[in-house]
Amino acid sequence: MRKQITGFSNPTVKYLRSLRDKKHRKRAGQFLVEGLRLLEDAREGGRLPRQIVLAENRDPHPLLERLEADIIAAGGEVIETSPDILTKITGKSNSQSVVGVFDEWDTGLEHIDRGAAQIWLVAQALRDPGNLGTMLRTGDAVGAGGLILIDDCADPFSAEAVRASMGAVFTQGIAQARWEDFVPWLRSGSGQLVAASLRDAVPYRGAPYAAPCFILVGNESQGLPEAYEAECDLRVTMPMRGRADSLNAAVAGAVLAYEVLDSF
Amino acid sequence: MRKQITGFSNPTVKYLRSLRDKKHRKRAGQFLVEGLRLLEDAREGGRLPRQIVLAENRDPHPLLERLEADIIAAGGEVIETSPDILTKITGKSNSQSVVGVFDEWDTGLEHIDRGAAQIWLVAQALRDPGNLGTMLRTGDAVGAGGLILIDDCADPFSAEAVRASMGAVFTQGIAQARWEDFVPWLRSGSGQLVAASLRDAVPYRGAPYAAPCFILVGNESQGLPEAYEAECDLRVTMPMRGRADSLNAAVAGAVLAYEVLDSF
Repeated sequence: MRKQITGFSNPTVKYLRSLRDKKHRKRAGQFLVEGLRLLEDAREGGRLPRQIVLAENRDPHPLLERLEADIIAAGGEVIETSPDILTKITGKSNSQSVVGVFDEWDTGLEHIDRGAAQIWLVAQALRDPGNLGTMLRTGDAVGAGGLILIDDCADPFSAEAVRASMGAVFTQGIAQARWEDFVPWLRSGSGQLVAASLRDAVPYRGAPYAAPCFILVGNESQGLPEAYEAECDLRVTMPMRGRADSLNAAVAGAVLAYEVLDSF
Repeated sequence: MRKQITGFSNPTVKYLRSLRDKKHRKRAGQFLVEGLRLLEDAREGGRLPRQIVLAENRDPHPLLERLEADIIAAGGEVIETSPDILTKITGKSNSQSVVGVFDEWDTGLEHIDRGAAQIWLVAQALRDPGNLGTMLRTGDAVGAGGLILIDDCADPFSAEAVRASMGAVFTQGIAQARWEDFVPWLRSGSGQLVAASLRDAVPYRGAPYAAPCFILVGNESQGLPEAYEAECDLRVTMPMRGRADSLNAAVAGAVLAYEVLDSF
């Protein structure tokens, strides 16, 4: 269905604006994606938005026209509105001329098929959505199966995480679990849990990685709890030549993931 | 000197608030640093703030007391104020109980002593201050000499860059230069310019890196201009097993830097 929205106080505008907020996203089970490029990434990952909102003054684009047609064919909505209202929805002054509304999907561990990839990334209490999105992007690059989010992490469906993922949010597997549920799941099949650590660790170069390899990184400021490190099958250490004893979480995960990739 | 500030409209409060903005920082040549931990990193890097602003309700801390004494001995100012006014200065509701005001320092290329380190990081048009800070942090970890910022990059003295650097902004060398000034400087001495590239590149693993090695990463959305890639002495490629053809800039720099570090 095609619709037009002309008023700032339209309830749809209010609803879409509310999706910028995590609490409202969780309640609604929907999230926003800005820009044609990410919407095309979503399509490649098999996800079609329920609705798209377009600026009236947009430039015509064949991919956008195809997307509009597909959404209408699937029973979704194509909404036209003014650039000002679109800006109000996204909260950004130089906003893209198209925004899609997606249903969140189930991120239970049971959807992770560990045999589908040799590398899986696992993040514990990762708070920064940019780091989260960057890990999804890195996962795509190393051919990982996806990202498993342990304990209280940033929301993978936040605008910042989606953007930083460069679309990998639609193609990488995503699961969310508590540690006490993750460990039994992990141990119910094959899988090596690896973390960068300063305790009882071997050099990360040439360490005996084994697939499927689950690369665990910890919270940005606390690192991993000691009990979580102790659960790991392999603890590796990276050279730290300076004053600091740790890397940015997404960086540590990436350096380790490339090392694991090379070892297989 | 010790001072007390009680009014929100005090000119010092207005001035300090203004330093959150890049334009005002550049005009004033000063920047803000929040939190005792970063202030201690600064001290380790040989930088003392001109002023610190303390919340009246702070917890006592021996490091803070030492810092206060040093600042007063150096002719600086120790200002006490209410938590509300401190929040107004930093713009953050859960702000730290101490903020320091530092003079920016000269970031000319002539301050870079290329022989002092085997690795240097170079970023071109890096727009995200978080990425910039993360590169400084990675530079510290790999024992790099510093970060050279080419063309229009984010401000290394922004609060976000300082925070993401985890204090490395005070210990890593920092230079800012236009490309047309950087290249003659680079070629006036020894140095290998290396970039991750898809064009005419060799695998990044085991590539013939040579010190001092300048690792160049490009802008977050555009990558490196072709002419900049062409100037490189070595172009290397990293495995990209997914849909995307690039990594986050700070991640790419880190994976490459760890490979270079291992090869020396």
